[in-house]
Amino acid sequence: MSANWQRLIRFVAVETSRIHIGQPVDPKIDVGLAVLSSKPLKAYEISGSALDPDAKVTSTVLTVKHLLDPLSKDQVKLVRCLGLNYRDHAAEAKLPLPETPVLFYKPASSLIGPNVPIVIPRVAQPVAEHVPDYEAELTIVIGKPAKDVSEANALDYVLGYVSGNDMSFRKHQMATSQWGFGKGFDNSTPFGPCIVSSRVISDPQNLAITTEVNGQLLQNGTTAEQVFSVRKTVAFLSQGTTLEPGSLIMTGTPKGVGFARKPQVYLKHGDEVRVFIGGGLGTLVNPVIEESKPKL
Amino acid sequence: MSANWQRLIRFVAVETSRIHIGQPVDPKIDVGLAVLSSKPLKAYEISGSALDPDAKVTSTVLTVKHLLDPLSKDQVKLVRCLGLNYRDHAAEAKLPLPETPVLFYKPASSLIGPNVPIVIPRVAQPVAEHVPDYEAELTIVIGKPAKDVSEANALDYVLGYVSGNDMSFRKHQMATSQWGFGKGFDNSTPFGPCIVSSRVISDPQNLAITTEVNGQLLQNGTTAEQVFSVRKTVAFLSQGTTLEPGSLIMTGTPKGVGFARKPQVYLKHGDEVRVFIGGGLGTLVNPVIEESKPKL
Repeated sequence: MSANWQRLIRFVAVETSRIHIGQPVDPKIDVGLAVLSSKPLKAYEISGSALDPDAKVTSTVLTVKHLLDPLSKDQVKLVRCLGLNYRDHAAEAKLPLPETPVLFYKPASSLIGPNVPIVIPRVAQPVAEHVPDYEAELTIVIGKPAKDVSEANALDYVLGYVSGNDMSFRKHQMATSQWGFGKGFDNSTPFGPCIVSSRVISDPQNLAITTEVNGQLLQNGTTAEQVFSVRKTVAFLSQGTTLEPGSLIMTGTPKGVGFARKPQVYLKHGDEVRVFIGGGLGTLVNPVIEESKPKL
Repeated sequence: MSANWQRLIRFVAVETSRIHIGQPVDPKIDVGLAVLSSKPLKAYEISGSALDPDAKVTSTVLTVKHLLDPLSKDQVKLVRCLGLNYRDHAAEAKLPLPETPVLFYKPASSLIGPNVPIVIPRVAQPVAEHVPDYEAELTIVIGKPAKDVSEANALDYVLGYVSGNDMSFRKHQMATSQWGFGKGFDNSTPFGPCIVSSRVISDPQNLAITTEVNGQLLQNGTTAEQVFSVRKTVAFLSQGTTLEPGSLIMTGTPKGVGFARKPQVYLKHGDEVRVFIGGGLGTLVNPVIEESKPKL
């Protein structure tokens, strides 16, 4: 691919009131924290679309009025997820390490961007019984159609990486053998704030990954703990299966999830979740609301 | 909805060599069998799209050159599926009846139409070890966004019904707790030949549902055996979750699947699978091929 962007955000610009994609002018800034500050966030406009192999950074500088999810739901189409893909998380869940990747899906309709509320629906209330839970996840963005690709070539099909949160409602998740219903609610898959190009992340197996809830550090891991590396995951999942451009693969969560803690932690109305991943992926901030409760 | 079609097919027309949607002129014809005969299949063109609430049957008659899947993959976006939703199938699988619907997903990328080969990928060969298996399923097509709908109103959100086959590769399906990988291969979700409007099917819980492999009757059930009715399924799945127009819900399979038979039955290169559902949904015919084997 000859696209030359390193980090990509999608946003409404102050100057145009329209949606653009761009690259933050400050190469070191944490986009997710920057938009929470009072300082304006500036970005060089990128021509083309995020999935365009020829998308180019231009010299036009725009100001972020409103940060969006880095891909639209229509661009993503499908979210693949791995379960039990961290050695330390499998241990806390008291489950054996998987011998093959544990694949499940989340609907694209569940995706939200930074700062958009995670919604605990009525069917997952009261929260103390249903245990709404965070899962910080390194998320792969597929860049071109991948089918039957080798481990050696797998990263050629990866457009980049983004911070993600595979929100899970534990009572529903555990009610049947399949996790589909308890992980598929609207507004239950935050991702963002930006996509970092795979040309920049030379080693995706050495990234810090953390979750803070209301400022308290609850997950504090590294992607070095992954059972199946990004390379292995893309190669495995592409067997007999076309991974489509724009589709996401959430690669599992490290230890520290709420339901495995003593005492158990669950998210509730008014909480704030911050997922951070290193390598420039940055902080994904989302407030939590319970449906039908008064606005915050 | 004021659309007035009763049965909808998508096809390339002899007269135009373009894609159209239409309603078979013969209201009783089994579309899936008709396209296999030497007699031309005629249809009244439908104006608009399948998901257009105002789509109307016109008086223009076209001839089917090539029958397609009744919705494109882009129109479907996502396939929801229920596991263990027939009393007789749960019994043969030696599993208890579920107390809540067992929801999993198949990617839209796995969809194919009538007469398109089901492909057994190299990763699911040899077949005697991997047990590629048919699952005849009554498939719901959602017609308008459904969220938190009641059982009483659930059928108002159903555009119609179509025959479906939830192809399952048993070794992969059973290799981990989640069924995603073993049910997600390309060309593993046939559906068609036509959508029958929910205005025509007054009772979806009283339809015959069968599978024949190479002419041998292997599933011979009725939707009366469903644990969760269509009404209950749509209402349950819509809790906290937007079911999008065009998305499919495959409602589980009756007894008679290959892996539960004695001796076990598995699909192989050169087989032909026919899923039939009553009420005018008709016969879904697909040949089976093993990847890398000589063409039939």
